[in-house]
Amino acid sequence: MAGQILIADDLSLNRTVLRGKLTSACYRTLTANGGVSALKLVHEHRPDLVLLDYHMPDMDGLAVCQALRADRSTRDIPVILFSANADHAHRLNALAAGADDFMAKPLDEAYLLGRIRSLLRNVARRDEWRNHPNTALQAGLAESAEPFAMRPDMALVTGRAEAREGWLSSMAAIWPDARWHDITVPAALGLDDPRKSPDVFVITPDAMDRAGLHVIAELRSRAATRHAEICLILPPAARADGAMALDLGAADILPLPLDRAETRLRLEKIISRKRCADAQRRALENQLGLAAFDPLTGLHNRSHALAEFSRAVAQKNAEFALLLIDLDRFKDINDQHGHNTGDEVLRQVAQRMRQDLRHGDILCRYGGEEFLLAMPDADMSVARLVAERLCARVGDHPYILRDGLAKLRVTASVGISVHDAPGRALTTDILKRLIGASDMALRAAKHAGRNRVVSAQSAVA
Amino acid sequence: MAGQILIADDLSLNRTVLRGKLTSACYRTLTANGGVSALKLVHEHRPDLVLLDYHMPDMDGLAVCQALRADRSTRDIPVILFSANADHAHRLNALAAGADDFMAKPLDEAYLLGRIRSLLRNVARRDEWRNHPNTALQAGLAESAEPFAMRPDMALVTGRAEAREGWLSSMAAIWPDARWHDITVPAALGLDDPRKSPDVFVITPDAMDRAGLHVIAELRSRAATRHAEICLILPPAARADGAMALDLGAADILPLPLDRAETRLRLEKIISRKRCADAQRRALENQLGLAAFDPLTGLHNRSHALAEFSRAVAQKNAEFALLLIDLDRFKDINDQHGHNTGDEVLRQVAQRMRQDLRHGDILCRYGGEEFLLAMPDADMSVARLVAERLCARVGDHPYILRDGLAKLRVTASVGISVHDAPGRALTTDILKRLIGASDMALRAAKHAGRNRVVSAQSAVA
Repeated sequence: MAGQILIADDLSLNRTVLRGKLTSACYRTLTANGGVSALKLVHEHRPDLVLLDYHMPDMDGLAVCQALRADRSTRDIPVILFSANADHAHRLNALAAGADDFMAKPLDEAYLLGRIRSLLRNVARRDEWRNHPNTALQAGLAESAEPFAMRPDMALVTGRAEAREGWLSSMAAIWPDARWHDITVPAALGLDDPRKSPDVFVITPDAMDRAGLHVIAELRSRAATRHAEICLILPPAARADGAMALDLGAADILPLPLDRAETRLRLEKIISRKRCADAQRRALENQLGLAAFDPLTGLHNRSHALAEFSRAVAQKNAEFALLLIDLDRFKDINDQHGHNTGDEVLRQVAQRMRQDLRHGDILCRYGGEEFLLAMPDADMSVARLVAERLCARVGDHPYILRDGLAKLRVTASVGISVHDAPGRALTTDILKRLIGASDMALRAAKHAGRNRVVSAQSAVA
Repeated sequence: MAGQILIADDLSLNRTVLRGKLTSACYRTLTANGGVSALKLVHEHRPDLVLLDYHMPDMDGLAVCQALRADRSTRDIPVILFSANADHAHRLNALAAGADDFMAKPLDEAYLLGRIRSLLRNVARRDEWRNHPNTALQAGLAESAEPFAMRPDMALVTGRAEAREGWLSSMAAIWPDARWHDITVPAALGLDDPRKSPDVFVITPDAMDRAGLHVIAELRSRAATRHAEICLILPPAARADGAMALDLGAADILPLPLDRAETRLRLEKIISRKRCADAQRRALENQLGLAAFDPLTGLHNRSHALAEFSRAVAQKNAEFALLLIDLDRFKDINDQHGHNTGDEVLRQVAQRMRQDLRHGDILCRYGGEEFLLAMPDADMSVARLVAERLCARVGDHPYILRDGLAKLRVTASVGISVHDAPGRALTTDILKRLIGASDMALRAAKHAGRNRVVSAQSAVA
C-alpha cells in the first residue's frame, strides 16, 4: 500500500496536529509516542516515509534515524527530522545521521507536503522495476553505486556576471573536491548532449530572479539535461517557491545564508542519488543488452537477429538469403575437453566468422553450436560465396586453446536458402520456410560428410 | 541536437516576434514563410517541434500538419497550430488534423512555453530507449498500440457532491464509449494499486478550487497513480494555472465551456499517448524478461539463475549443491529429426524436470541440451535423491512428438557437486569450482555409459 506515513513525537498534541495535516492531504498515518515504538512500527508496517521529532525522551529522533539507516531493510525509507530548535548543530546532526531533510517547528505545511511528495516520487521512480522477475536486474538495482568515485560535476547557474566569482568561490570552499563551474541559464538550456550535462545544476537566487521557477521545468524538458539533478539556493522567505520547485522536480533547496557543512551534506546527498539513478539506468541498459546479445559470443541472439533481419529486409527491394552454420561433431569437444574449452571454441569461431561478413549481414548464435547468418540483400551466388568463405575460415586453421596447451581442429557444415520474390516483406511464414529449407540443406551437408556447403534445391517463394 | 523549433508563418513580422520569444526562452529556431518551405525544412532539419500558422497562402498549416502526420518519419513530431480566428471549426480542424494543440493569436506566451516544455518532455521520455542497440525493443517501441481496443477508463475528479451528476452526464455525452465514473480527491489519492487506477483523471474546476494545483503533483507522486494521465478543465481566464499545470505533469487543459467535439479529440489524444506509454513499458518488461528467461523452455537462463542462486545462498546457512544435467546423444535427434523436433524435446524435458523440484531449487537451461539445477539448501544425499528422480523422470517414458507421429526415447546424464562449508557466501571462485566438479562428474557419467548420476568425489570447500 502506498502513502503511509509514520509520525513519531512524544507530545500527543503535536502528533494530533501533524496527523490532521497529513490526513487532510490524504495520507494514511501511523503514530508513535517515542523513538522505541517508532522503530518497532517501522519494522512492523514498513511505512513509505517517516517523520521524526528530534527530541524524544526514550530514544531521540537522531538515534532512530541512525538505526533505520544502519539496517538494510529500512535504510531506503525517506526520513524527515524536525525540531523547535533549528540551530546549526541540530540541522547538521540530522543530515549527518542520514535524514533526507531537517525542518524547523512550527512546520511550514506547504513546504512539508511538497517535500513529502518529492521524496515519495523519488521512491516510486527508484522502485519502478523492483518487482520485475529479472533477478539480475534486481541485483543491479540493489547495488549501491560508489557515489564519489567520479568527481562530481557541479554547474552553478548564475544571473549577473559580477556575482559569478563570489558564488564560485563560496561553493568551492564548501566542497573543494567537486568540480565547480558557472553557467548562464541560456547556456544551460543550450546544452545539446547529455554527456556534457553536469551532475547537478545549482541555481543561484539572481538566476532565479530572471528566469523564474520555469527554469526547472525547462531543464527537465530538454533531452540533454533531463537526468541532471537540480537544486535551488533560496532565501528562507521564499519557502513557497521552494515547495513549488520541489513539485517541479528540484532535488533540494539550499537555504540562505549557506551553512558550509549543511550545504555540503545536502549536495553530497544529491550526488548519491544521482549516482544511484545512473547506476539503475545502466542496469536496465545491460539487461536490455543481454536480451539482445549472446553473452558468450557477443553475437546477436536469435530473436534479436530475426527482428533486425525483418527490419533490414523491409528497407531493401532485393532477394535475401539465410544460412544455418553448424559446427561438426562439436559434442565430442564438450565431452572430451569440457565445457570451458567448448565455450572458448565457440567464442573463437564467432570471431573468425565475423571477419567475413558483408555490411548489413546479421550473424547470430542460433543455439548451442549452431549459427544463423541472415543476408538482407543477397542472391544464391553471393550467399554461396560467403558460405564457402565462412566454411574455410572456420575449418582451415586449428584453434589454440587453454593458453596454448591444446590445439583443436573444428569444421562447420552450412545450409543455404534464398527467397526469390524481391520486394516482399519477411513474413513469419516465409521465415519459417527459409529456416526449414536451410535446415534441410544443412542436414544434407552433414550426411554428405560434413565440412561443406549445401544449397537448398529451390528458392523459397 | 535538442530544442530546435520550426516557425511557419507567412507574415514576416509574426515570425520575428515569435522567434524573439523562443530565442529568449533559449530555443534554437528555424523559420519558414509558407507551408511548402515548412515541409521542406522539416525533412531537412528534423526539428523537435513545429509551430504552424493556420492560414498561409501556398499551403495552409492544416495541410502541412496532415502531411507530417501521414509520413512515418515525421508523424511523431509535436505540432501546434495557431490562428487569429479561434472559432469552433478552426480549433476542431486543427486537432482532427493531428495537431497536439491549437492556440489563438495573439499567443499567450506563458502558456505557449509551458505547452512546448510539456510536449518536449513527452518526446524525451518516449525516446529514452530509442538508441539502445536492442532492436527487438525498438520494434516494440515503434509498434503503435491500438489506442481504443480497451475501453478507456476515465475518472472525473469532483469537489462538490451536488456537481457530480452534471459533470458525469456532460462527459458521458462527449464520449459515450468511455467508462466514466466520479471520484473525490481523497479517494483518488487513496488508491493503493496501479491496477485500480483509471487511464485518465479529469479534474473539474470545483475539485481544483479545493485541492489546488498540488493535486497534480500528488497524483504524480503516488505509486498507484503515477502512470495515469491527468487533465484539467479550466476557465479561459486561468491560463496561467494551465501553464503551471502542464509543468507539473498534466497532459492537457480542457477549456471551458467544453466544446463536445474538441474535448473528445483532446481526450482521445491523451488516451493514445497513455496506450503508447503502457505499450513501451510492456516492451521494456518483455525484453527484461527475455534477459532472464530462456524463450524455448521458459526456464531461467544461465546468468539469471546464477544471480538468483547467489542471492538464495546468502540467505541460508546450509550446504548447497549444483547439478549439471545433459541429454544423451541429443545431437542425433537434431540431425535425424530436425531442429523443430529437437526444440520440442527440450521443451518437454524442461516440463518434466520442473515437476520434481523442491521449493527454492533453481533450474535453468545452461546452454544447448544442458541444464543446471542449483539447490541453495541441499547436502549430497538430498542432491543425489533429486538427481536420480530427475534422471528417471526424463528417461522413463518416451516423448510423443509431431502430433503423435513420432515417439522418441531420451535419457540424461547428471553430475553433482556440493559445497560443504555452510554459511559461506557463493563467490565466483566457488561457483566456478562447483561447475567444474559437476562437469567432471557429468563426463564420468557419460563415459560410464550415460543415463546415470555421478557425484563428484569430494565436496568443494
